[in-house]
Amino acid sequence: MSTATDMRRVVLFRDGRGLSRDLLGGKGAGLAEMAAQGLPVPPGFTITTAVCLEYLASGDRKLDGLESEIRAAMTAVEQTTGKSFGNPANPLLVSVRSGAKFSMPGMMDTILNLGLNRATVAGVIEQTGNPRFAWDAYRRFIGMFSNVVLGLRLGNFEFLLEQYKHKVGARQDTDLDAATLKDVAEAYLALVERELGIPFPEDPWQQLKMAIEAVFRSWNSDRAITYRRHEGISDDLGTAVNVQAMVFGNMGEDSATGVCFTRNPNTGEAKLYGEFLTNAQGEDVVAGIRTPRPIDELDATIPEAAAQLREVARMLETHYRDMQDLEFTIERGRLYMLQTRNGKRTGVAAARIAHDMYREGLITPREAIRRLNAGHVIQMLLPRLDPSYTPEVLATGLAASPGTVGGVIVFDPDEAVTWAEKGKEVILVRPETCPDDIHGMISAKGVLTSRGGNTSHAAVVARGMGKPCVVGCEALQVDVQAGTLTCPDGTVLHKGDALSINGETGEVLKGLVPTLPPEPSAEFQQIMRWADETRKLGVRANADTPDDAERARAFGAEGIGLCRSEHMFFAPDRLPVVQQMILGATEKERQAALATLEGFQRQDFVGIFRAMQGYPVTIRLLDPPLHEFLPNATKLHEEVASLRSVGAPAHEITEKQRMLRQTESMHEVNPMMGLRGCRLGITRPDINAMQVRAILDAACDVLAEGLRCAPEIMVPLVGHPAELKVAKAQLEQIAAEVQERRGMTVPVLFGTMIEVPRAALVASTLAEDAEFFSFGTNDLTQMTWGYSRDDAERSFLFHYLENKLLPANPFQVLDTEGVGQLMRFAMQGGKATRANLKTGICGEHGGDPASIAFAHGLGLDYVSCSPYRVPIARLAAAHAVIEAESTAADQR
Amino acid sequence: MSTATDMRRVVLFRDGRGLSRDLLGGKGAGLAEMAAQGLPVPPGFTITTAVCLEYLASGDRKLDGLESEIRAAMTAVEQTTGKSFGNPANPLLVSVRSGAKFSMPGMMDTILNLGLNRATVAGVIEQTGNPRFAWDAYRRFIGMFSNVVLGLRLGNFEFLLEQYKHKVGARQDTDLDAATLKDVAEAYLALVERELGIPFPEDPWQQLKMAIEAVFRSWNSDRAITYRRHEGISDDLGTAVNVQAMVFGNMGEDSATGVCFTRNPNTGEAKLYGEFLTNAQGEDVVAGIRTPRPIDELDATIPEAAAQLREVARMLETHYRDMQDLEFTIERGRLYMLQTRNGKRTGVAAARIAHDMYREGLITPREAIRRLNAGHVIQMLLPRLDPSYTPEVLATGLAASPGTVGGVIVFDPDEAVTWAEKGKEVILVRPETCPDDIHGMISAKGVLTSRGGNTSHAAVVARGMGKPCVVGCEALQVDVQAGTLTCPDGTVLHKGDALSINGETGEVLKGLVPTLPPEPSAEFQQIMRWADETRKLGVRANADTPDDAERARAFGAEGIGLCRSEHMFFAPDRLPVVQQMILGATEKERQAALATLEGFQRQDFVGIFRAMQGYPVTIRLLDPPLHEFLPNATKLHEEVASLRSVGAPAHEITEKQRMLRQTESMHEVNPMMGLRGCRLGITRPDINAMQVRAILDAACDVLAEGLRCAPEIMVPLVGHPAELKVAKAQLEQIAAEVQERRGMTVPVLFGTMIEVPRAALVASTLAEDAEFFSFGTNDLTQMTWGYSRDDAERSFLFHYLENKLLPANPFQVLDTEGVGQLMRFAMQGGKATRANLKTGICGEHGGDPASIAFAHGLGLDYVSCSPYRVPIARLAAAHAVIEAESTAADQR
Repeated sequence: MSTATDMRRVVLFRDGRGLSRDLLGGKGAGLAEMAAQGLPVPPGFTITTAVCLEYLASGDRKLDGLESEIRAAMTAVEQTTGKSFGNPANPLLVSVRSGAKFSMPGMMDTILNLGLNRATVAGVIEQTGNPRFAWDAYRRFIGMFSNVVLGLRLGNFEFLLEQYKHKVGARQDTDLDAATLKDVAEAYLALVERELGIPFPEDPWQQLKMAIEAVFRSWNSDRAITYRRHEGISDDLGTAVNVQAMVFGNMGEDSATGVCFTRNPNTGEAKLYGEFLTNAQGEDVVAGIRTPRPIDELDATIPEAAAQLREVARMLETHYRDMQDLEFTIERGRLYMLQTRNGKRTGVAAARIAHDMYREGLITPREAIRRLNAGHVIQMLLPRLDPSYTPEVLATGLAASPGTVGGVIVFDPDEAVTWAEKGKEVILVRPETCPDDIHGMISAKGVLTSRGGNTSHAAVVARGMGKPCVVGCEALQVDVQAGTLTCPDGTVLHKGDALSINGETGEVLKGLVPTLPPEPSAEFQQIMRWADETRKLGVRANADTPDDAERARAFGAEGIGLCRSEHMFFAPDRLPVVQQMILGATEKERQAALATLEGFQRQDFVGIFRAMQGYPVTIRLLDPPLHEFLPNATKLHEEVASLRSVGAPAHEITEKQRMLRQTESMHEVNPMMGLRGCRLGITRPDINAMQVRAILDAACDVLAEGLRCAPEIMVPLVGHPAELKVAKAQLEQIAAEVQERRGMTVPVLFGTMIEVPRAALVASTLAEDAEFFSFGTNDLTQMTWGYSRDDAERSFLFHYLENKLLPANPFQVLDTEGVGQLMRFAMQGGKATRANLKTGICGEHGGDPASIAFAHGLGLDYVSCSPYRVPIARLAAAHAVIEAESTAADQR
Repeated sequence: MSTATDMRRVVLFRDGRGLSRDLLGGKGAGLAEMAAQGLPVPPGFTITTAVCLEYLASGDRKLDGLESEIRAAMTAVEQTTGKSFGNPANPLLVSVRSGAKFSMPGMMDTILNLGLNRATVAGVIEQTGNPRFAWDAYRRFIGMFSNVVLGLRLGNFEFLLEQYKHKVGARQDTDLDAATLKDVAEAYLALVERELGIPFPEDPWQQLKMAIEAVFRSWNSDRAITYRRHEGISDDLGTAVNVQAMVFGNMGEDSATGVCFTRNPNTGEAKLYGEFLTNAQGEDVVAGIRTPRPIDELDATIPEAAAQLREVARMLETHYRDMQDLEFTIERGRLYMLQTRNGKRTGVAAARIAHDMYREGLITPREAIRRLNAGHVIQMLLPRLDPSYTPEVLATGLAASPGTVGGVIVFDPDEAVTWAEKGKEVILVRPETCPDDIHGMISAKGVLTSRGGNTSHAAVVARGMGKPCVVGCEALQVDVQAGTLTCPDGTVLHKGDALSINGETGEVLKGLVPTLPPEPSAEFQQIMRWADETRKLGVRANADTPDDAERARAFGAEGIGLCRSEHMFFAPDRLPVVQQMILGATEKERQAALATLEGFQRQDFVGIFRAMQGYPVTIRLLDPPLHEFLPNATKLHEEVASLRSVGAPAHEITEKQRMLRQTESMHEVNPMMGLRGCRLGITRPDINAMQVRAILDAACDVLAEGLRCAPEIMVPLVGHPAELKVAKAQLEQIAAEVQERRGMTVPVLFGTMIEVPRAALVASTLAEDAEFFSFGTNDLTQMTWGYSRDDAERSFLFHYLENKLLPANPFQVLDTEGVGQLMRFAMQGGKATRANLKTGICGEHGGDPASIAFAHGLGLDYVSCSPYRVPIARLAAAHAVIEAESTAADQR
């Protein structure tokens, strides 16, 4: 590639081959490629993205000096077409289109027929012998230009047009004759002058300059920025501008315009797919006034051009070795290609196309792997909104757990259970959820909350269950008492009303929306097998229960990277026992509760070990602050008051007051950085001891069944090596006791999470005691940035992302510069001390493709993510290998 | 030094010169030095600290193999003394004493007369012709050994002795005759056998082995550990054991025992100071049964020995070039030296002795600087407890701000003001303080709270005011309503009762304790001038008001390193305006409040700039979460209820409810990591704009007066370079506006705090925009460790320190391994980008000597601390220079 040194700012299509998409944009590169291949492309030129960036950096002031280059290019176009830009005798008309590297809605799209004015319109009449065509083209141009370049509202022009139609009794635009269209054009020009105080630009060169600048500026339009933010496209790319000689699909019934895909983008079927309109310009297809016809009918309509189109499609697909998205125009029977680009497709289609192309010998298995992305996998594995349906969005919250689901709403978790038992599909709606609601969440098809962030209880639990969930939808008012959900538009929904949520976009949708069920195709499964053979990173799942573990295996997880041992504490039958363990009045009561919990834990671990069939299971010892398990203080206050008011016995009131006092005394100012993790295990060693004993006993139980079992015990929140030493000493003693008692040997590993920045800094010492490191990138991100995720995502983080302060949400995409640097230190330190140190990620980033690529580069052994993201991680891990190899190849 | 390779485990005093104090302990090294100088030291040997560590590491099991070395050393002692250990014919008796590197209470101190048993006691009678002396020595030995080695309570033995005294009608021990003392000894032996079921060890070698092991074990006694923790002494040093031939001060009126200092440890006067008892053993001096006589009287009592003692004192002081703390015994007119070590002294004495020794040509100014420590400076500059008074401690909280003060207690801040106006000295007692209490804190002499940590409102504000303060004293129950303070022993104090607090120890003291006023002596001031000439680090103060600034200058601060611009918001006349700025119903109301605040801020900054006379003033833009300024939600709830109950107008209730809702909506889960610092400045740029304008206008006001002024504007909590860019752009625009409007140029610097771990990791980029870095080590420690200080110091951190998990509280002593490593990265990155980057510390560590030494090593430009710690910091900065130079010299 020669882009880095190529200083050309204006490039003719025919000279552009070999220049990068970075410089020419996607559209420009496609046109250049087609021109080079000798395909019928109307001549034109591309003004590069570098010019756009220069223009924007100059504060939208500088385009001078460029003019001579544009004039030179235009001269070339004039020579090819035999027409002359701005020359009334034989006018050349051009289109001006934006073209960024990635296709992007929200930017100024297209101006057609530029170069027309009162003088040149006469020339067009002369050329075509068709005054109606000429005046129609002129009035369209004035409208389009006034709207997108001059910023006038399109409605003004449409209103004028309607007035003229009314005046002459025309029903459609096509009913208007040349004279009326001329009047319309004049009225448009008068409107512009009235609105702006200056006349509509007559000079074609002036028109061109203004149009080009408008394209550049549209790079920074709100919609374009929002789109880039959502898609993770850099703001630093800029857009190119394509100026191209006009061809006309509206020159009669042997003329047409259309769009088509070289294969079916919904199913992947290897057959041209698209639509066209005869005697029309591109905007007519978009406007939807006339219904376009399926592409198959083109063969009968304009056979020669149709045959040529099929041949062009085949050539382009073979050249690009991917399904293409084409735009074309047929002018008086002659085909012109206006665009080729890789086409967007559904997950199903992506798998089928990639697999078919492999069989056709077009691409290798590795290329097939690259043709699938995370979005495709999600579409393949979760129920999704029927793409043919446009839902009504009531409000938008945080996308906490993907999948689209509809149901009737309930506000009470008990009711969720009852209704579900009656066969109803329910959406549980709460201000926020807490452990007491868990049975309701299990029974519901989806969960919607008005408060809380991406680490709120609802979000974490729903993700773990693979259940669609939208949280923190603050525009909704949830009144549990009244049983109402009030939308921003004032709509009030009651218990039993239908509602849908899209956990991929965070949208709350009106009514029951149609969804498509998951359907992992054979082609998809084949490509995933290739991915598994390719990747170096192991992929594990975060799973807390035997059910989770089963699911994780089904999705291809090769172990559990994070079993949050305390998640089992939240089950309705266990929570009271946990509370007793914490609040019990006497040591005896607390120890009795602990003993009961040990039985529960052992039984869960047995189930998990069985499900994982000898794959490693990393169990994190108790992590959250104990107050998370306690009843809310306000609730206890109310209970005390109510006991008093009903005249309950004094000892009951005293006991409740004691619990309240204890709960209040456990309140923390910043619980995220308080008494939790190993700090808890060290200050309350009896809980750790119980957990370790349960793990070892469960392992012995499973080994006794003749199964394999590989527990890995993980200490959370370690910041100082002494913490790990204390924990390890305790573990080893208990492990020895259990193994002696059972007369068995358990192959147990002992390791630590790296989630406190300090842990990364002292990793070399930690590795003396730790046999593995698991990067807890959620907390590591929180502390490295000093962001409490719950708070940040409710307030400034959103503002930061919207205002481009940050390139991405660091909780979704691993911050390689900051957090990643700490991980690099930790890897270097850890491996220096213990060469065979096992390393992995168990934060949410373990399911994010960009973060997985970083993990691969860092040389981690595995990533771990929620079961539903395991296939995405498997694919991303393969991508990382292919990406790294191709980068290495480029550098050779 | 040859210590590292010296493998001798038992070292005769006469062979020990040149071995380190690390190995011999302080006492052993002193004895070796004196022996080498030919001073009269009873012969003996030291068992090294290395043996102690070996013994403890072996689980208190291993001393085997050492015995032959001990026997060899004992043989040498026998040869010198002409006596024989365990030989009834001519018995050698020895003392066994612990001796760690640093003098340490809490360890097993002394066993005298070891080697006595039924057989050898007869030998002593033979040697001395004094059966009373022999039996008295024997019964003392049995008692001492049984107590410190066998663990029996001393009271048992004292009770027996009293019984015998009663039986024979003796009033004092000295009234007992030999026969009775023999009976006492036998009764002691019987008691031991009865209590332990085994006879008292008769074999002198067995006695010796047991005594040595007891000394080793006492290294890990609770009291010893607590002392080391408090003094920051490493647990890894171990103690040596000194075995020494007995000499007897109780052999008649020409015998004596005593302790003395070579200069007065209270005043520093250059004159022998101490006391002695004739015909006594060391324990008698300690027991306080007879009143010791001042050392001056020794000249008349035993003139020859006294003259020799004065000569020895002079020699030792000249040798050690420091004031010595001596122990001696005179046996039948002959002087024996038992100990020499550097003596402890008060701040006043330390300064005088150092200065005198400089004038005497004994030490250089740099050595004089080293003779002062932080404790001396505090004593010199703050009122302190009269050391002659032993107060009664009611409870102990956290030492939040030093100084000792007494007064009458009040619970209400308004009352604190009223009472203070009436001339009463009051201690404000609260569960915790909040901004509403500030006027009370200003009026009070000291502040005591039952809740809150070292960063609680009370602690921070009191430190800033230099006012004694104890916080988080949870053993006290403060009932503001009832106006009572209940102590752990059940004592209830009421409003107006007297109480004292010691902010250096955290102790709450009964009644009004006598205190000594601060008195910085001329000698002290001279040494501080030397320190200023020596140090490389600048020393600034953290100061928020013009008063603070004046005080900081008086203490020698060379600028303000941290002016918390928002601390001015808490003043009673401003808080309502601040609340209006946040909660105001309309934009207009909020902007009006902001304008009012701007006036306040400008006026404060003018005062501060004037006070600092052109020294730099670093002003941190708004940092805390806005909800810190708001009324408490519970209080608002109550106000709403009370408005309702009195039937207030609806609009008043509505307005209050609106405020309540808004307050609640601003609640954060982890406010430390939420919407604060630059996140606030970026999301509410109007506040930042107001502050920057106030700073620049104030600077212009001061410059217009012909004064100099050097503001430095600091952005807090930056984690990503974009945050700094946004803030800088805003600053520069406003600075330009003000300078243009005023027609003046302000020499303003722009910089950032490094307090989020990520900031340290991206420091090289930050330095592109920052002209200075100020390390906010408080928050940097919180986030690097993942410790919320408020929570950690209430729960696990205490447990960690007590259980030796951590070497020190990282909030008091900078964690050089973790936090320090991040600081090192930041320095490297920052300096690489901007060679003249200005750097400093503005966290609490800026006043901690160890942390200051680290800052010096890192090459920072300055440290900043509370005004009252400025002299400590100046001294510590000089120490750092001297320390570094001496380390460098050692390595050459």
